Amino acid sequence: MSDRPPSNARPSNFEIVCRTGCARLGRLKTLHGTFETPIFMPVGTNANVKLMRSDDLKRVGASIILSNAYHVAVRPGLEVIELHGGLHNFMAWDGGILTDSGGFQMFSLKNFRKVSDEGVTFVSPYDGSKLFLTPELSMDIQRTLGSDIVMVLDHCPPIDVGYTEALDATRRTHEWAERCLKRGVKEGQLLFAIAQGGAFEDLRRASARYLSEKDFDGFAVGGLSLGEPFEMTLRLAHATVSELPDDRPRYFMGGGSPRTIIELVAIGIDMFDSVYPTRLARHGAALTSEGRLNIKASRYRKDLSPIDHRCDCLVCRNYTRSYIHHLLNRGETLAGMLLTYHNLYYMFRFMERVRESILNGTLEEMRREVAEIYEERRG
Amino acid sequence: MSDRPPSNARPSNFEIVCRTGCARLGRLKTLHGTFETPIFMPVGTNANVKLMRSDDLKRVGASIILSNAYHVAVRPGLEVIELHGGLHNFMAWDGGILTDSGGFQMFSLKNFRKVSDEGVTFVSPYDGSKLFLTPELSMDIQRTLGSDIVMVLDHCPPIDVGYTEALDATRRTHEWAERCLKRGVKEGQLLFAIAQGGAFEDLRRASARYLSEKDFDGFAVGGLSLGEPFEMTLRLAHATVSELPDDRPRYFMGGGSPRTIIELVAIGIDMFDSVYPTRLARHGAALTSEGRLNIKASRYRKDLSPIDHRCDCLVCRNYTRSYIHHLLNRGETLAGMLLTYHNLYYMFRFMERVRESILNGTLEEMRREVAEIYEERRG
Ligand SMILES: [Zn+2]
Ligand SMILES: [Zn+2]
Repeated sequence: MSDRPPSNARPSNFEIVCRTGCARLGRLKTLHGTFETPIFMPVGTNANVKLMRSDDLKRVGASIILSNAYHVAVRPGLEVIELHGGLHNFMAWDGGILTDSGGFQMFSLKNFRKVSDEGVTFVSPYDGSKLFLTPELSMDIQRTLGSDIVMVLDHCPPIDVGYTEALDATRRTHEWAERCLKRGVKEGQLLFAIAQGGAFEDLRRASARYLSEKDFDGFAVGGLSLGEPFEMTLRLAHATVSELPDDRPRYFMGGGSPRTIIELVAIGIDMFDSVYPTRLARHGAALTSEGRLNIKASRYRKDLSPIDHRCDCLVCRNYTRSYIHHLLNRGETLAGMLLTYHNLYYMFRFMERVRESILNGTLEEMRREVAEIYEERRG
Repeated sequence: MSDRPPSNARPSNFEIVCRTGCARLGRLKTLHGTFETPIFMPVGTNANVKLMRSDDLKRVGASIILSNAYHVAVRPGLEVIELHGGLHNFMAWDGGILTDSGGFQMFSLKNFRKVSDEGVTFVSPYDGSKLFLTPELSMDIQRTLGSDIVMVLDHCPPIDVGYTEALDATRRTHEWAERCLKRGVKEGQLLFAIAQGGAFEDLRRASARYLSEKDFDGFAVGGLSLGEPFEMTLRLAHATVSELPDDRPRYFMGGGSPRTIIELVAIGIDMFDSVYPTRLARHGAALTSEGRLNIKASRYRKDLSPIDHRCDCLVCRNYTRSYIHHLLNRGETLAGMLLTYHNLYYMFRFMERVRESILNGTLEEMRREVAEIYEERRG
């Protein structure tokens, strides 16, 4: 079913422009634009980045977002997306879209699914309806969605499973990855594999090595950022990355706080996604050059400064902390809208600085600065 | 305390450009712009129009909004607004602001207040703190807020009170109006009186007549749109308007559905405010050239048309009914944001058409068209 020419005939979609240490400045070409890496992707699970219109997403600097094939296939359903001619039209978003395959929902919806080697059966928490998701179906769904980057169906176990279970999930992930590759994607779509391996470095390395030999356009580090200590995230991500081919993009799934990003860029990760900036915003917190601020705190009641005095976003140019504090205090959703806008703008400026620091060889200085203003946090 | 020159020295801030029947096309000059009437004012009770940034408010065509002196004085409190140099800066809104005085809260917060001739004591539903609001204090608050149009403190009784109570509220409203006039406003601020009179035509006429003789910049019809049948609204508003001076703006408080507006424009009303378009939006309903549509309804699940095929707003140019239906279905706030944007855009285009129809003498045709697509509704 693959429409793609064989790999030796295909030009590479990823180019590394410059390096500093293990960090890489790259360019990734997709059907909806060429993106500079390291890159951050906001999360739009239900076919929308919460509280952001697509024109505002563009305005803050988003170029590619993440959406979830499984969620979208359940609601509104594939036939609705197909009528629109794909997810881009449905969401009115002409930038890039990476879709997760449904693998992560095997973790997050663990009470609503049953896994076998053939595939996974999900029972909808909404209406009890069943979906039998196979690697082949996941490919077909993402083909219909028209994703720019398609993720293989993987088996993502909790981080605390034992060796046997981790090994089994890894083996299954590999078999599924090959089935995805065989099913293929549409011409121009990129297909990324996902390395697993639980909390075990040898499995992590083996998984990366195994997948590296196959013809994928990029590789993801899966099954991390699930609550484990950051030191462990870093160690296991490093084990994976050390066995991945140097010339393909590397995507760390589900992590994207400034601290997470800068540390993982330093070990050679190119792509990130996270609900971190948007979720924080909805809880009243801002990412700033002074670190994370809880604008709900009473000390901001009369603070006439912008959220971040170093930020030139629409929100910082117009609104005071005092005003946003007032909106939070009154439960006005506009607060979350303004904070989401600013936090995403902040993240994209942050990524610009990360890329500049790779170009200038000042990544180490930036790392120290970020470590100073942000504590270690998940995200 | 009034900084204004005496009325005979002041140029009029209102000019009538053209008439058709009793309807008037006018121009109202304020400190933050000159606005064409009939005009619609969106409601921003807690110093924000729900789900709308101020730049988007501009973009949809809002030129003046309503806010509530009482609510804002309670939260965030006057000292916060004063620090910002007024409500405009606080909200990042450089268009017009009309502030209601707190009179309406005597109706809406009726379990939290005690009225005497001297003023009204509010007990905060939040923390039990008390505010003794007098006509003088209401003027001082609105001076600090920097409102473009200041409303007198009035006594707004429920629509179903008997004659004695209505008479008493009307008498008190008159006394308070005179105290407001005496306290005065800042130079450039406009001061509007509010005519009351309950459900009694003779009291309505008497109230309008009494206030007409005073030096107010405009006159409001108060105490209506409180749940009474629309036929009654129309009859009582007409009684009021028939006694108001012809050369001053007339503002119908708290009503603003398309049907309400067109009928009241026809009897000579110039200004409207209502939560109607914004509240409907948050409940999933759209105002369109086909009337009011409930986008939550399952028939829109696969509807690829825009909310309104005759609308050229940002939302209608980009999103389908199907997409917004999906967002509503998933409880995504973006649905309310998109619908609010469209509904307000719709209202301002509607007001443009109302003004054109006065200019062209086609108001009657437009009235029939509106009556056809919208049933009689409160708003
Ligand atoms: Zn900002
Ligand atoms: Zn529209």
